[in-house]
Amino acid sequence: MSRVVCFGEIMLRLAPEGYLRFVQADKFTAVYGGGEANVSVSLANYGIDSAFVSKLPDNMIGQAAINSLRQYGVNTDKIVRGGDRVGIYYCEKGDSQRASNVIYDRAHSSIAEAKSEDFNWDEIFEGTEFFHFTGITPALNDNAAKITLEACKAAKAKGIKVSCDLNFRKKLWSSEKAGQVMGELMEYVDVCIANEEDAEKVFGIHSSGTDVESGKLNKEGYQEVAKKLKEKFKFEKVAITLRESISASNNDWGAMLMDGEEFYYSKTYSILPIVDRVGGGDSFGGGLICAILNNYSPQDTIEFAVAASCLKHTIEGDFNHATMSEVKTLMQGDGSGRVQR
Amino acid sequence: MSRVVCFGEIMLRLAPEGYLRFVQADKFTAVYGGGEANVSVSLANYGIDSAFVSKLPDNMIGQAAINSLRQYGVNTDKIVRGGDRVGIYYCEKGDSQRASNVIYDRAHSSIAEAKSEDFNWDEIFEGTEFFHFTGITPALNDNAAKITLEACKAAKAKGIKVSCDLNFRKKLWSSEKAGQVMGELMEYVDVCIANEEDAEKVFGIHSSGTDVESGKLNKEGYQEVAKKLKEKFKFEKVAITLRESISASNNDWGAMLMDGEEFYYSKTYSILPIVDRVGGGDSFGGGLICAILNNYSPQDTIEFAVAASCLKHTIEGDFNHATMSEVKTLMQGDGSGRVQR
Amino acid sequence: MSRVVCFGEIMLRLAPEGYLRFVQADKFTAVYGGGEANVSVSLANYGIDSAFVSKLPDNMIGQAAINSLRQYGVNTDKIVRGGDRVGIYYCEKGDSQRASNVIYDRAHSSIAEAKSEDFNWDEIFEGTEFFHFTGITPALNDNAAKITLEACKAAKAKGIKVSCDLNFRKKLWSSEKAGQVMGELMEYVDVCIANEEDAEKVFGIHSSGTDVESGKLNKEGYQEVAKKLKEKFKFEKVAITLRESISASNNDWGAMLMDGEEFYYSKTYSILPIVDRVGGGDSFGGGLICAILNNYSPQDTIEFAVAASCLKHTIEGDFNHATMSEVKTLMQGDGSGRVQR
Amino acid sequence: MSRVVCFGEIMLRLAPEGYLRFVQADKFTAVYGGGEANVSVSLANYGIDSAFVSKLPDNMIGQAAINSLRQYGVNTDKIVRGGDRVGIYYCEKGDSQRASNVIYDRAHSSIAEAKSEDFNWDEIFEGTEFFHFTGITPALNDNAAKITLEACKAAKAKGIKVSCDLNFRKKLWSSEKAGQVMGELMEYVDVCIANEEDAEKVFGIHSSGTDVESGKLNKEGYQEVAKKLKEKFKFEKVAITLRESISASNNDWGAMLMDGEEFYYSKTYSILPIVDRVGGGDSFGGGLICAILNNYSPQDTIEFAVAASCLKHTIEGDFNHATMSEVKTLMQGDGSGRVQR
Amino acid sequence: MSRVVCFGEIMLRLAPEGYLRFVQADKFTAVYGGGEANVSVSLANYGIDSAFVSKLPDNMIGQAAINSLRQYGVNTDKIVRGGDRVGIYYCEKGDSQRASNVIYDRAHSSIAEAKSEDFNWDEIFEGTEFFHFTGITPALNDNAAKITLEACKAAKAKGIKVSCDLNFRKKLWSSEKAGQVMGELMEYVDVCIANEEDAEKVFGIHSSGTDVESGKLNKEGYQEVAKKLKEKFKFEKVAITLRESISASNNDWGAMLMDGEEFYYSKTYSILPIVDRVGGGDSFGGGLICAILNNYSPQDTIEFAVAASCLKHTIEGDFNHATMSEVKTLMQGDGSGRVQR
Amino acid sequence: MSRVVCFGEIMLRLAPEGYLRFVQADKFTAVYGGGEANVSVSLANYGIDSAFVSKLPDNMIGQAAINSLRQYGVNTDKIVRGGDRVGIYYCEKGDSQRASNVIYDRAHSSIAEAKSEDFNWDEIFEGTEFFHFTGITPALNDNAAKITLEACKAAKAKGIKVSCDLNFRKKLWSSEKAGQVMGELMEYVDVCIANEEDAEKVFGIHSSGTDVESGKLNKEGYQEVAKKLKEKFKFEKVAITLRESISASNNDWGAMLMDGEEFYYSKTYSILPIVDRVGGGDSFGGGLICAILNNYSPQDTIEFAVAASCLKHTIEGDFNHATMSEVKTLMQGDGSGRVQR
Repeated sequence: MSRVVCFGEIMLRLAPEGYLRFVQADKFTAVYGGGEANVSVSLANYGIDSAFVSKLPDNMIGQAAINSLRQYGVNTDKIVRGGDRVGIYYCEKGDSQRASNVIYDRAHSSIAEAKSEDFNWDEIFEGTEFFHFTGITPALNDNAAKITLEACKAAKAKGIKVSCDLNFRKKLWSSEKAGQVMGELMEYVDVCIANEEDAEKVFGIHSSGTDVESGKLNKEGYQEVAKKLKEKFKFEKVAITLRESISASNNDWGAMLMDGEEFYYSKTYSILPIVDRVGGGDSFGGGLICAILNNYSPQDTIEFAVAASCLKHTIEGDFNHATMSEVKTLMQGDGSGRVQR
Repeated sequence: MSRVVCFGEIMLRLAPEGYLRFVQADKFTAVYGGGEANVSVSLANYGIDSAFVSKLPDNMIGQAAINSLRQYGVNTDKIVRGGDRVGIYYCEKGDSQRASNVIYDRAHSSIAEAKSEDFNWDEIFEGTEFFHFTGITPALNDNAAKITLEACKAAKAKGIKVSCDLNFRKKLWSSEKAGQVMGELMEYVDVCIANEEDAEKVFGIHSSGTDVESGKLNKEGYQEVAKKLKEKFKFEKVAITLRESISASNNDWGAMLMDGEEFYYSKTYSILPIVDRVGGGDSFGGGLICAILNNYSPQDTIEFAVAASCLKHTIEGDFNHATMSEVKTLMQGDGSGRVQR
Repeated sequence: MSRVVCFGEIMLRLAPEGYLRFVQADKFTAVYGGGEANVSVSLANYGIDSAFVSKLPDNMIGQAAINSLRQYGVNTDKIVRGGDRVGIYYCEKGDSQRASNVIYDRAHSSIAEAKSEDFNWDEIFEGTEFFHFTGITPALNDNAAKITLEACKAAKAKGIKVSCDLNFRKKLWSSEKAGQVMGELMEYVDVCIANEEDAEKVFGIHSSGTDVESGKLNKEGYQEVAKKLKEKFKFEKVAITLRESISASNNDWGAMLMDGEEFYYSKTYSILPIVDRVGGGDSFGGGLICAILNNYSPQDTIEFAVAASCLKHTIEGDFNHATMSEVKTLMQGDGSGRVQR
Repeated sequence: MSRVVCFGEIMLRLAPEGYLRFVQADKFTAVYGGGEANVSVSLANYGIDSAFVSKLPDNMIGQAAINSLRQYGVNTDKIVRGGDRVGIYYCEKGDSQRASNVIYDRAHSSIAEAKSEDFNWDEIFEGTEFFHFTGITPALNDNAAKITLEACKAAKAKGIKVSCDLNFRKKLWSSEKAGQVMGELMEYVDVCIANEEDAEKVFGIHSSGTDVESGKLNKEGYQEVAKKLKEKFKFEKVAITLRESISASNNDWGAMLMDGEEFYYSKTYSILPIVDRVGGGDSFGGGLICAILNNYSPQDTIEFAVAASCLKHTIEGDFNHATMSEVKTLMQGDGSGRVQR
Repeated sequence: MSRVVCFGEIMLRLAPEGYLRFVQADKFTAVYGGGEANVSVSLANYGIDSAFVSKLPDNMIGQAAINSLRQYGVNTDKIVRGGDRVGIYYCEKGDSQRASNVIYDRAHSSIAEAKSEDFNWDEIFEGTEFFHFTGITPALNDNAAKITLEACKAAKAKGIKVSCDLNFRKKLWSSEKAGQVMGELMEYVDVCIANEEDAEKVFGIHSSGTDVESGKLNKEGYQEVAKKLKEKFKFEKVAITLRESISASNNDWGAMLMDGEEFYYSKTYSILPIVDRVGGGDSFGGGLICAILNNYSPQDTIEFAVAASCLKHTIEGDFNHATMSEVKTLMQGDGSGRVQR
Repeated sequence: MSRVVCFGEIMLRLAPEGYLRFVQADKFTAVYGGGEANVSVSLANYGIDSAFVSKLPDNMIGQAAINSLRQYGVNTDKIVRGGDRVGIYYCEKGDSQRASNVIYDRAHSSIAEAKSEDFNWDEIFEGTEFFHFTGITPALNDNAAKITLEACKAAKAKGIKVSCDLNFRKKLWSSEKAGQVMGELMEYVDVCIANEEDAEKVFGIHSSGTDVESGKLNKEGYQEVAKKLKEKFKFEKVAITLRESISASNNDWGAMLMDGEEFYYSKTYSILPIVDRVGGGDSFGGGLICAILNNYSPQDTIEFAVAASCLKHTIEGDFNHATMSEVKTLMQGDGSGRVQR
């Protein structure tokens, strides 16, 4: 099948237009997205043969979700059809001091109620080099966690590299449960991706000197976090995004990569105004995997991943539509935003 | 509380703009509606003190559903907050030979998972004259059927008139199950409302000479249907809407009322083009209850109900926004559509 | 100045999108229009040098009204700036049995409160061949009627042909008042334009055998109406549009011209579905004046005017954007609507 | 009736979409709002039983204005129907160095032409604790000022607390006239609300060291202003908002409360980009009244009012849709805008 | 490659919203389409492995055109990137007596300026059973005609069935030129598709008793047309669509199939109102090829093709989004348009 | 004809809505604009009699382009109709670190293929004081360069002042070719307008200490640039805009004027967020010409031009809709963006 396989849930995102609040909306823009689907689209955009695996109902909403992936070149042949519903998340865009709001309505979705026998991982992984999942899928329920574990085992058995974005969601599970389930899955993971608070929320590994709520990060403290993660789970690489939230419209955005024993920090971008923050982390993952598959140097790897995700913040929807050449231009230093004509 | 109480589910309706199909939509117009909520809005529009009772989640989507009722003057004080989700239905508008499509995503909604103790019917029915429900609510599941039965019993105990729109939905239950559950509820019903196929689908009472699929109805045959319904359940009144579908854009629309032993037929309207057919039957129910509460003659009653619902077909969304005076103008014969200026 | 001068009010029209009702609207499409402005745009579209004269406030809404005329080539140099407001009309589009609704909010507009000294008719009419007004302007108030009378006198003094569309508006004045004021103005009019009920509403001249409300017209009866109008006011030409309203979406549309002693009837068009009926009569006037200026035969004159206004019914907004060649194609018999490619 | 009663005008606001200018607009977004109506919606959002009293025409535009209030839970039972029109204001959103523009078209509205006998204040104030009005209503004309005075007297007679937002509008009246009319009304006022220039424009009380035009405020100078206001009118509380305009898109926003003899300053928020500034002051008033009714400490009162109105700047339309919990989260220090999921 | 290959141009279609005219539009809906691309989408919708071959510029507009095909499952791997521009057609929707208008801006598009060496037909046709083109591609210019001829020859050499929709476009070439170029291509064609006037316009074969302009067809006369086409070019099948245009909104739609010596007529559908007529003929071609590949009986073949294209008239855009099961439901007689719920 | 004549191309600009990328767009907002047309609209807005001369096809898209100019008061009488197409540019709005993108599709437009005999400059320039063109028109092709030269010569012969905005476009021609063609044209130019990189790109005159890519300018260095330009071409005035791009959303904007031997620098505005940067330079040119025609002092001239173009950055579309009084208010120092009400 494809060079990279991503597995997880793709949801319908319903968002009021512009900066309208839920109670003001009589229209929702409808896009499809999800942590792993977003990564698969990023990769396809960079010209990498990429497949997304999931389960979706055999109705026209499920079809529309598939079409949204096909449109951007993702292979959807292994998406299973069946079950009752496409998961939904309602998303209200924040501005300045007003935070974005997400209301999940994803319980009982087709993928949440999928069965092990829906997926033949040996077949799915034929010809695959890289498998990616996130902490959201095992958080759905025990069954989804079990399928994820089966996928990890099958990947490892075939010598496929595995990456995981910890992606802790407090509305889906507790830190305790997350630590336990994710702990087991980490055994199969080579590349660990986390944001500035995932390590603490999932594994209780704290970055000293950091107060995420206030938007102040101690960037050096994350070296310690990465080291502990590596010690515990033998990761090959650990990549941590470092977001400083000045407001809903203005974030400083950078990241750190631990590759072997070394640490690499990217440039920091001051993004203002943010167009759409959702999917920012996923676009980092997509950039990171692309850079790894292209054998970029560690410094270039983290610069590429951060430039890619910086651009995502300026793009509507879950998917990152930045092209290879746009990411490269930005990582090489042109963030002046001068008209290209 | 209010003069009329309606009980049931209010859902979020997601519809592609204009005549776009689901797979073409990147926006959904969002309105709220449901069989019984639609009746409560019709009544409030006619100046009748009307309440809607249901359960909705304690989030902003639930709040938006409530607001949509308050906006049109419906009392929402007895709506219980809690549970997980607002039920959804996706609705794609048909045209000419292409039928409208409805995809339900309503399982596990707050009202479907409500409990008997959520509703104190004695308190709800204080000062109430009329209670209305439809066959959709008991179809949700056994629990919803049980609550409906409790409401019916409480209404009867207080001497409140009860109306029911049979509203058979084949995607929710089988004819067999419907017949059994609805049969028990009918004991408490005074006014039975049905469309041209409900009696057959729920109780197996067929109108000879009619082929609903082909759009050809034998209007006289429905006298027999009404008689049998009355014999079986001792209804005071039976009202049957008679729709002849020429196409998705063009319907002939009329109705028959059996009041006591007599039959009254309304005028028939040729509606072309139909703007939105959903809620057409509910607007008939709303008009009927309004006419009954206003002590209209049987002929005026059926003319009012049919004129009201004719106008609904020209209005977007689930709710009927026709005013009292517009309905009267039409029932008195001015369907010429000349500009009012 | 210009070959044809039209004088009257141009208003802001606020209309809910599509078929939404006023109470459903959170957006209004905004166009500008008015009986006489609409005629001036029709004429400019046909390549005739046409000016519109009025008064508009010296703010950006007044400017936008002017721009809407300039956009389509109308000369606006003689529009006076001042006064308080642009008149508004809210317009809700009807469908099938539901009539369109117009709510006027035009009192105290700049033109309604204009003064005689705002207009120097001698200067305005320099080089003018044709002056057009409608019964709406004198209906605004006595002052507007006085200015209209002054314009008529100035036109006659210069030998300019004068046309008037009776355009009775019951929300602006009574039949009694209208008969009196319009009676005086008719003295200066050469070409009288009326719809199927204006003659009766303004001058009490009834067409026997016609019931406008029911949509049934006795077309021959209008010969008598035209004759009586001519006898009374010495008109050169009388043109009467004959609309049969089957529904808000479906009208039969034709007209009769009395030229000298002869009667000429146009083809009748069955328009379905109507896109926008407002301005239909004005587009007839525009077509009629164009045909007269081009010296068409009486039969061609009435065919051109009716074909022009038939096309207007298929176009959004007050203005008729049909081109000369489109009108000719239709009047020559091609109403098949085949794609032009 | 309700715990808080607000009295004034609710207008239709017509705004071009996004950042379009009036001359570019062919659509207007339509919301309803006004200084006092905005306060009544804020209070209803915070769960306080709140009523709005006004007069609106008996047509569908008047109905839509009422519906917009009902939608958000405001009691509208005492709104009188009658008169000619809903007042309008056109509003063009500014950006960066380009200021927002407001064009008023509110003369001759139903409330401006209301009569004393339209309102039975004794009945309206039954069970009321708080009465709120602003300087806009008496500015409409002498008649509206007279009705406002009657309301104030009736409120005082019942021991109801009265708050007034000075809200000077130079397009409605002169400083001289304002000072005279408002001076008389202040006798009945307990809580005085003003912005950084109202005290000077209405009562000639200047804050030394401040140049509003340039956006530079001397915050300490406002202690003197508050003291003088209190001396003159015996207010219980004086609250002054302190806006520093860096540009149309970027304001620093804070406030000062004088309670008894003490002064309390809120945090200052740097809002960027502003979504909609209109109604910012009203949302401050709504927050202030809510805090007072909830017996917050003076410091919490001013923090709550400022946080509430900070959030309003991020919300489209006149109404503040921030919830109680959102305001509290912000006043407790989380302005980082991190996604809530 | 794919089971069916279609070759031609895919253009950007720019259409004013709703029924707006070009001069009223400040927005264009943007879809992509073209005679052969439309067929390829129809086939993919029916589950047939379908590829589209063309040339598109290497910019984001070219990419968007490709994405629109991928979205609906068409294989785009053999689309060549290069050249200067995506061809455009502006399309204004007609209504009632007003015809739709198409303005072509397609000269100098990438496919019009493609070269023979851009396409390796042997590779493209690997595994292909069916090749489809239309008369539009050779009409672009001699070069495009040459490439089309090369494709036909390559197809024949591999034993691939070839279908051609004559699709005469008078704005692209003369009847004389068309007859000559198409005559040569017909040698390779097995299935000839034409509308009611193509045979006459391209090959001068007239159907007696028919006046296309007036919308009156002599259906029997088309047997003679089909026979003559077959005699001249040895077609295996000739399919002729028979459109009777009552107006731009109302067409009667049917077709005739000559298979061997026999003639088969479909049902005739009265379509009202038409949502989008463009692509109607292409959807007929798509249905026809699908039916042939599925070995339907001749009668079922023509019924399937006509039902498919009837549904297309109710769908926005160039592409037909009717599903297999929707087409079958309609061809089996349910055109009543009753809501599917 | 008119006091100022501008000559060049007006194109259709197709832009995705909001911040959508090309591949996400299913709608394009459509406005018309071009370097010289934008100047002509600016001048008309300031009340200066201004004409635009070009060639546009004789179809409805060409007509819409003309209407867009007429709407804002530009004289279009000398626009020649003919040729094949309106040039197009696709424009995707950038945000923060993501640059705006322009895709040109302007080859083969009517003006690019116009002929010398299409324009009678003697007639066009009757009564004209000022002629303006830009470096874009001669860049189209040799023929357009030739017509531009003819215009320049005719202007000079009549003693008309000539201004030119260098406006280098690297997608249209090379620096070498530009230098050669523009060099010849400069002989006729009195007022030279350039941005921070034009002088270098066209004539190889570099500003030392400046790195345009990085957004850092050495403002003093531009004195040297202006001096060299003046020495070479004997310009009367040289005006250079100085843009420092912090990001696509945030620019510092100012300019320098060399008048005679003296240098004048404007204030610098920090624009954030930018609404639409396209046409920013043209609005500077429009402001400059207006100030010159009004005989402003050199300092006022450069302040007016910069304030005008600062406001343009806050306005959607190519045209600057800032009014005379708005520009003056800003140049006099009120950039606080306080609501005007």
